[in-house]
Amino acid sequence: MISHDLRFEIIDLYAEYAACLDEGRFDDWPEFFTEACRYRVMPRENHDQGLPLATINLQSRGALKDRVYGVQSTLFHAPYYQRHIIGPVRVKGHADDEILLEANYLVIRTHRDVPSDLFNTGRYLDRVVVTTDGLRFAEKLCIFDSELISNSIIYPL
Amino acid sequence: MISHDLRFEIIDLYAEYAACLDEGRFDDWPEFFTEACRYRVMPRENHDQGLPLATINLQSRGALKDRVYGVQSTLFHAPYYQRHIIGPVRVKGHADDEILLEANYLVIRTHRDVPSDLFNTGRYLDRVVVTTDGLRFAEKLCIFDSELISNSIIYPL
Amino acid sequence: MISHDLRFEIIDLYAEYAACLDEGRFDDWPEFFTEACRYRVMPRENHDQGLPLATINLQSRGALKDRVYGVQSTLFHAPYYQRHIIGPVRVKGHADDEILLEANYLVIRTHRDVPSDLFNTGRYLDRVVVTTDGLRFAEKLCIFDSELISNSIIYPL
Repeated sequence: MISHDLRFEIIDLYAEYAACLDEGRFDDWPEFFTEACRYRVMPRENHDQGLPLATINLQSRGALKDRVYGVQSTLFHAPYYQRHIIGPVRVKGHADDEILLEANYLVIRTHRDVPSDLFNTGRYLDRVVVTTDGLRFAEKLCIFDSELISNSIIYPL
Repeated sequence: MISHDLRFEIIDLYAEYAACLDEGRFDDWPEFFTEACRYRVMPRENHDQGLPLATINLQSRGALKDRVYGVQSTLFHAPYYQRHIIGPVRVKGHADDEILLEANYLVIRTHRDVPSDLFNTGRYLDRVVVTTDGLRFAEKLCIFDSELISNSIIYPL
Repeated sequence: MISHDLRFEIIDLYAEYAACLDEGRFDDWPEFFTEACRYRVMPRENHDQGLPLATINLQSRGALKDRVYGVQSTLFHAPYYQRHIIGPVRVKGHADDEILLEANYLVIRTHRDVPSDLFNTGRYLDRVVVTTDGLRFAEKLCIFDSELISNSIIYPL
């Protein structure tokens, strides 16, 4: 069993993670991760079949910072707003200072002057570690249901 | 007042219920219910007017197993993915080992090679009992807002 | 740190607020607010630029009651159902008997005989106070992402 304090910290982690991305504070995004983290976005079909191909595959916080630089400076794209709606978080396992978590997410996208649309939905499969600075993602895997939108994923999910 | 432990168990129950359905582990679905359970799916309009007609109406865990068999073996349908996003759970009442719960839900459907759509949204009105094996649904009522999709509800909500 | 009891009360507040609106119990809606409350709905673009213009701007519980009267008796509109899906609530600050809260929300709209649509999404930025009657909103600000739907916002968000 994990403590109630930790349960609430986990809820806060996801709420703050969503707020960071939805406010477009991309420079803060790598701070949610450990130095040696792994961040991947992959279609469900690949994940279910054990295929390794990921749409986005980043290793280390430095790679996340690179991605942020790309998003802000080099990737050509029409800006859009994101809005994360995250469901109840499921504790799948834990050991010492490490917790396996899963949560369904929906990201709604809004381009200027266009109605919002269902941009991306799926689940997070995360490994979180307890650090002296609070909880950090050691691994974050975003497994999305639809394959039709993958080439337009610009911002982190 | 119900205990904090129980509050977290309730959150876990909904998170695990969603994960079970969204991963397509339909054989595990009846295990979330008591032996003498009742599972119903009905349009909001009928519920609000006190009309009993339900789109799906199952009594006992055996009937749920029958439904799963139908879904997997006899119902002709194009497979689709489901993704449940469940909002905060509301404790409407409790007595001894029984709790009345309510939660808003949204199910997003994804057919292969088609963008995801808003499949079904509404609220769960549930009666949950504390058993030696953990929480189980004695009654689960899914009241959905739109009537336009009812004939295509194949998988449990 | 705020107590676990209070954390659960906050979750209940949002679940009950959503249930009140989604069931169309608009007469109960002002009861979620303090007497001197402020309720505003505004597009994200205005909020981000510090522009004060709000789509809806109500001061005091009496103004909320007026709005409810308008919605039920004078505003010409096709009735629709609302369904709020609210994400994890973030505690942004607190002092004495006051708490600053933020939560992402999605409101799905269902008109009769029409499929549900993404009606409004954004975040709540709320100031909640502890009263002898429980938690009440002293300030509720709904900041929505898309500007295309603002003239059709009839019911409270």
